[in-house]
Amino acid sequence: MAIGDQIRIVLVGTTHPGNIGAVARAMKTMALSRLVLVTPRIFPSAEATARAAGADDILARALICDSLPAALAGCERSYATTARRRHLEWPVISPREFAADLAADAVAGGDIAVVFGREHSGLSNAELDLCGTAIRIPTQAQFSSLNIAMAVQIIAYELFVARGGAPIGTGAAIADADPPAPAAEIDHLYQHLLAVMERSGYFDPADPRLLPRRIRRLLNKGELRRSEVQILRGFLTAVQSRLSAKGHDS
Amino acid sequence: MAIGDQIRIVLVGTTHPGNIGAVARAMKTMALSRLVLVTPRIFPSAEATARAAGADDILARALICDSLPAALAGCERSYATTARRRHLEWPVISPREFAADLAADAVAGGDIAVVFGREHSGLSNAELDLCGTAIRIPTQAQFSSLNIAMAVQIIAYELFVARGGAPIGTGAAIADADPPAPAAEIDHLYQHLLAVMERSGYFDPADPRLLPRRIRRLLNKGELRRSEVQILRGFLTAVQSRLSAKGHDS
Repeated sequence: MAIGDQIRIVLVGTTHPGNIGAVARAMKTMALSRLVLVTPRIFPSAEATARAAGADDILARALICDSLPAALAGCERSYATTARRRHLEWPVISPREFAADLAADAVAGGDIAVVFGREHSGLSNAELDLCGTAIRIPTQAQFSSLNIAMAVQIIAYELFVARGGAPIGTGAAIADADPPAPAAEIDHLYQHLLAVMERSGYFDPADPRLLPRRIRRLLNKGELRRSEVQILRGFLTAVQSRLSAKGHDS
Repeated sequence: MAIGDQIRIVLVGTTHPGNIGAVARAMKTMALSRLVLVTPRIFPSAEATARAAGADDILARALICDSLPAALAGCERSYATTARRRHLEWPVISPREFAADLAADAVAGGDIAVVFGREHSGLSNAELDLCGTAIRIPTQAQFSSLNIAMAVQIIAYELFVARGGAPIGTGAAIADADPPAPAAEIDHLYQHLLAVMERSGYFDPADPRLLPRRIRRLLNKGELRRSEVQILRGFLTAVQSRLSAKGHDS
């Protein structure tokens, strides 16, 4: 199953049907398909369909729920989104970290929900409590009024890029002299880096703590090019051979 | 001058005034302010102001031009945007690479234009020729119909993140246990990495080629956290001390 199929985009109490349509369009450009609406004020609506601009298949398959717990039923994890700078009582990550986390973890197969609040009042604290983690989209402090469909677009875009930006379900090649590194090459880089970290004494496999996971997340979030992976591996090989040339010590 | 002030967002032949308003809002959330409109079909308009949702100051200061060359006058560089997968005759970069390039280069002070085409027909080849480079926003192959304001939002978001995601012109602290690394720390990491690359024999300062620039770009594009910079510097220090402990060779 492609990871895009595991993602539920959940909109809570959306007021403007045009926004629901714009969300569907934003999702479809980034290969997401599962829309869940919690007590939308007006739906279905001609305005939603018009703004969906060809993504009306997503509207047609949208699930309508009467509460957020119902929308989250069966989810392995759920994330709330917020553009607010208030001191949150919940762990807060950036959209890029969220996408890197999903790309790094082998998601077992459960659904992942990303929850977006009302246009004017966002999510309540009780609703935030239902989600494990908050995603804060960075904005200018003086004007953080991000349209809800824009917020969905940014999250969906980060997910799409973290998956390699490749179209799902097609083998279509993109003309690109320096393509993104495929997941296997990132994984080889990860193994290589950990090996040299161990060789240098920086990493102790007997006491790994969070290092392997943090390294994996770091390598996943930069949209590395093949050429960049080659540079980093070339450097690691040089370090290895220099360390080996100098003999072996404990 | 903050880099946000050097960026001109140029919309060519926009048909729907609502999109112009949505673009202004998208820009303002990400601390961009300079909007240039080339032959908009309807402007000003009540619909644009409504969709700007508080970003009407950007609309009020928008420059109207009657041609793309007039809109690009005085720009040091200009970029065209496209969501199309056609084999472009122009160099194509991703939004993240674009943002990393701007963050890595010390932009001397000239303006940078990012040009967005018509809702239905995009930019003409002649218009693309006026821009040095194309930015392609990755989308699903089967549905690449990205709304123009969404495209502006993604580009503006990438620029904002590449600048550290910090609000411009304020010293407001963001509650964040693991904040993004400031530019100076990224620069120290860059210097440190190049030094160890040289020490390991991987990098020859007498023949640097493109390596320093590529490394800088690589470090700028990942939105590194302070803790991640610390991990990488800790590793580099371990490699250095291990190499030194083994004596000095050529």
